[in-house]
Amino acid sequence: MADVQSMHDDRMKEIDKVGVKNLRYPIVVLDSRKEEQATVANVNMYVRLPHNYRGTHMSRFLEVLNEFRGRIYIGNIHEVLTKTKQVLNSEEAFIELAFPYFIEKAAPVSGARSLMEYNCLFLASLNRRFDFVLGVEAPVTTLCPCSKEISTSSAHNQRSVVRVRIRFKEFVWIEEVVEVIERSASAPVFSLLKRVDEKHLTELAYSRPMFAEDVVRQVAVELEANKKVTWYAVEAENHESIHNHSAYAFIEKDKNEGKGPSRD
Amino acid sequence: MADVQSMHDDRMKEIDKVGVKNLRYPIVVLDSRKEEQATVANVNMYVRLPHNYRGTHMSRFLEVLNEFRGRIYIGNIHEVLTKTKQVLNSEEAFIELAFPYFIEKAAPVSGARSLMEYNCLFLASLNRRFDFVLGVEAPVTTLCPCSKEISTSSAHNQRSVVRVRIRFKEFVWIEEVVEVIERSASAPVFSLLKRVDEKHLTELAYSRPMFAEDVVRQVAVELEANKKVTWYAVEAENHESIHNHSAYAFIEKDKNEGKGPSRD
Amino acid sequence: MADVQSMHDDRMKEIDKVGVKNLRYPIVVLDSRKEEQATVANVNMYVRLPHNYRGTHMSRFLEVLNEFRGRIYIGNIHEVLTKTKQVLNSEEAFIELAFPYFIEKAAPVSGARSLMEYNCLFLASLNRRFDFVLGVEAPVTTLCPCSKEISTSSAHNQRSVVRVRIRFKEFVWIEEVVEVIERSASAPVFSLLKRVDEKHLTELAYSRPMFAEDVVRQVAVELEANKKVTWYAVEAENHESIHNHSAYAFIEKDKNEGKGPSRD
Amino acid sequence: MADVQSMHDDRMKEIDKVGVKNLRYPIVVLDSRKEEQATVANVNMYVRLPHNYRGTHMSRFLEVLNEFRGRIYIGNIHEVLTKTKQVLNSEEAFIELAFPYFIEKAAPVSGARSLMEYNCLFLASLNRRFDFVLGVEAPVTTLCPCSKEISTSSAHNQRSVVRVRIRFKEFVWIEEVVEVIERSASAPVFSLLKRVDEKHLTELAYSRPMFAEDVVRQVAVELEANKKVTWYAVEAENHESIHNHSAYAFIEKDKNEGKGPSRD
Repeated sequence: MADVQSMHDDRMKEIDKVGVKNLRYPIVVLDSRKEEQATVANVNMYVRLPHNYRGTHMSRFLEVLNEFRGRIYIGNIHEVLTKTKQVLNSEEAFIELAFPYFIEKAAPVSGARSLMEYNCLFLASLNRRFDFVLGVEAPVTTLCPCSKEISTSSAHNQRSVVRVRIRFKEFVWIEEVVEVIERSASAPVFSLLKRVDEKHLTELAYSRPMFAEDVVRQVAVELEANKKVTWYAVEAENHESIHNHSAYAFIEKDKNEGKGPSRD
Repeated sequence: MADVQSMHDDRMKEIDKVGVKNLRYPIVVLDSRKEEQATVANVNMYVRLPHNYRGTHMSRFLEVLNEFRGRIYIGNIHEVLTKTKQVLNSEEAFIELAFPYFIEKAAPVSGARSLMEYNCLFLASLNRRFDFVLGVEAPVTTLCPCSKEISTSSAHNQRSVVRVRIRFKEFVWIEEVVEVIERSASAPVFSLLKRVDEKHLTELAYSRPMFAEDVVRQVAVELEANKKVTWYAVEAENHESIHNHSAYAFIEKDKNEGKGPSRD
Repeated sequence: MADVQSMHDDRMKEIDKVGVKNLRYPIVVLDSRKEEQATVANVNMYVRLPHNYRGTHMSRFLEVLNEFRGRIYIGNIHEVLTKTKQVLNSEEAFIELAFPYFIEKAAPVSGARSLMEYNCLFLASLNRRFDFVLGVEAPVTTLCPCSKEISTSSAHNQRSVVRVRIRFKEFVWIEEVVEVIERSASAPVFSLLKRVDEKHLTELAYSRPMFAEDVVRQVAVELEANKKVTWYAVEAENHESIHNHSAYAFIEKDKNEGKGPSRD
Repeated sequence: MADVQSMHDDRMKEIDKVGVKNLRYPIVVLDSRKEEQATVANVNMYVRLPHNYRGTHMSRFLEVLNEFRGRIYIGNIHEVLTKTKQVLNSEEAFIELAFPYFIEKAAPVSGARSLMEYNCLFLASLNRRFDFVLGVEAPVTTLCPCSKEISTSSAHNQRSVVRVRIRFKEFVWIEEVVEVIERSASAPVFSLLKRVDEKHLTELAYSRPMFAEDVVRQVAVELEANKKVTWYAVEAENHESIHNHSAYAFIEKDKNEGKGPSRD
């Protein structure tokens, strides 16, 4: 049977990324207590394709994925990419995994326990060097400082989504990033709250009014101080309760800038 | 050229709906001041297919749509469906149009004018009788009565989405439904607000705390009293600022119940 | 602390459904080999609220969910709803679970094994009687009979999505529904295919051209013959390769019609 | 009334982007015949915020948008950004507009005319220098060269989405980019096709089999040769008819590389 993909291509165009996209696959992630958590990821896998080959062999990405049988941790992503480069005969491989991750939280006063969901992201590539980005998205409450200041009582508040992406030189757990985000907002968000908790969080948010701008700055100050983190990007999107659009703020910082190249 | 669609089918299965789905098309809608508004609709068009035909002629739906060239009002939907039945040779035709609709609103104190977007829906069918459902979705602010009651100050509030669908015997404008929704919530939502407006709306919402349950009941009470409306379904979904999930309430009511059949 | 939700409401409006919506939660589903599969569900839980209560107690839905700790099978949905009715003090409870479900499939010629994802749905309610709907969505290949007939070679084909919902009097596994769908299309779809499989499936699809209309009829004929199934709704949506919209067909059938009431 | 946003901030963190996101707004776009097309855009507007200010004034973005009253062309984006910088007192402003754009096409044999929808994008920023990226997304048909080669007849084919983004030194119309994409695939896609057209396109696609890799290379070769274009990024995503995931290819090229900096 002809191998059309391996045929020669003379258009002299190297392809930056070629592979499979939007594949859903069950994976297992380690949490900070070293326990396994089963979840479902949206998976993209690509390689760089030299200019002289017509196509890549898409089925091999699936074979790599099957070989690791969904047991994909931060700790073996390097191995997954090494295998991908090898079986696809490429100099560079990429993997992107987006998945919901659950953390058990205790409500602030009642202590009632429930599971909160955080959307997470692993973005990794391997050529001669290995690059890994951890992404964590956490919902929080923000309460508007301006509205509080000018109103005789109350202040508009809303659910906001904070997205952090980091590169690190020493391992950082998803849980650590969630904690940074949650203490940088007006209040954290929970699945299960009793009335005493609702009172506590309403008053907490009112005592800590924050703009989207405040949230990203607060997160940035913490990540700046964290010696393990080498690069970060933070965005806050407030689903404004008085508007039908979002208020948005974004900060990106490469701590190595001036000290050599970094890539996105 | 063979007409495969017109071939005989002997599986004895009538098909309830067959046609085209998720087609985007520019349309023109009349607003309550009788002015035309250009927008873009997501369009579904179907017919009922008798058991003895193998398939429908999909291209004819597009020809009907082109013939009306996007000039599709509530007022000519009956004509569009009559034409669809005729060219597709069917006893029943359906059309579904979902589109953003813009209303110019003045901010409550400053009077600053801006455009607010409302997602609207026309659902219509024609067999021997004509059925028409108008759907209107409006974002609003809701402020939690429980949180207000138990907290020393403030209360959690959030953006909510209220969706109303109605059948009527006398014409009802989209603007009328928007007004019912907006006065049934803690506060309406605007695109452009100056500081004086933000103060007003913060205080207004705090003076009118409402659960999702309150909002759907308030809308239902108004639609119940409106003689033009014969059927309604109302749902409120609060994007809770203290949770990562929504609070939800739903009421449906057919005023003709007991007086004969209605369909959905 | 005041219990605002339990206050009296005099608007005389019963609320059909009130509860929590769009909550993501890890669940465990039993597969047809009686093995457990961990996945993540989108969860909605509602109750009917009598006209004289102002609100429901949203946190109690979470307590029920936590009590079952994600161990939610078709087999204990009745128990979950009984508990929901009880703790929320309501006459009717609803639960809706949407989740990806994975089945290991062998490629048709090479036998290469991989996981395929199917979106599934449990829709259940309990008042005096228990109602349960199983939903299964499967991607398939459809190849256009008209295009094949009129073209000198080849035929346009595409990925289609077939959605089946059923009510049954004897238990039906997700796997059974997937099999009905996959044999009712031009060809099934796989995650991992080697070249021999791709050849086989290309030729299979070309030998079994099917309109969206054919697919829903074929599924309907099988479900009609299946004694366990009491009600079904089938839709096929072809993501046409020659258009930017879908071709769509839908059949619904209540086998008990004329024999007493059914509800949706 | 206190101006909380203008208060001093001492966290020493400049914010890269702050503003409004996911606002829907009616706009008017000029087409290549110099005629106006009304459509609805998703709008993001941001500015850079110096480290010493606590927040930005979100309402001013809306005032700028209202001032231009939706009359936003490629030609006046520079003016919109100049105004944004001025009223928000910032050194850098950004605008992102995503909108459906319609082109009337004639079917290849019958000449039947219909409207096709293309998702377009304007991404612009202004500091001392003006940066503008035009994005165009077009659906096309791709037919698999491997499947054709190994199968006795037919070949799997599917709808693919090709996304092109370009920077240019001389004006390029959306229509030009659409044409490049459509002639780089196995076949173009239409809204309305008669049987003679369907035959033509089926045979055309079979005569021009293309991988996702071929499509992005073909587009890249054309954009490379186009003197007006200074930078491009091309991606093709095939919604594989034999899989439930996509095949994907991506090429990016800055023609000025080595000749000075470019930004994204």
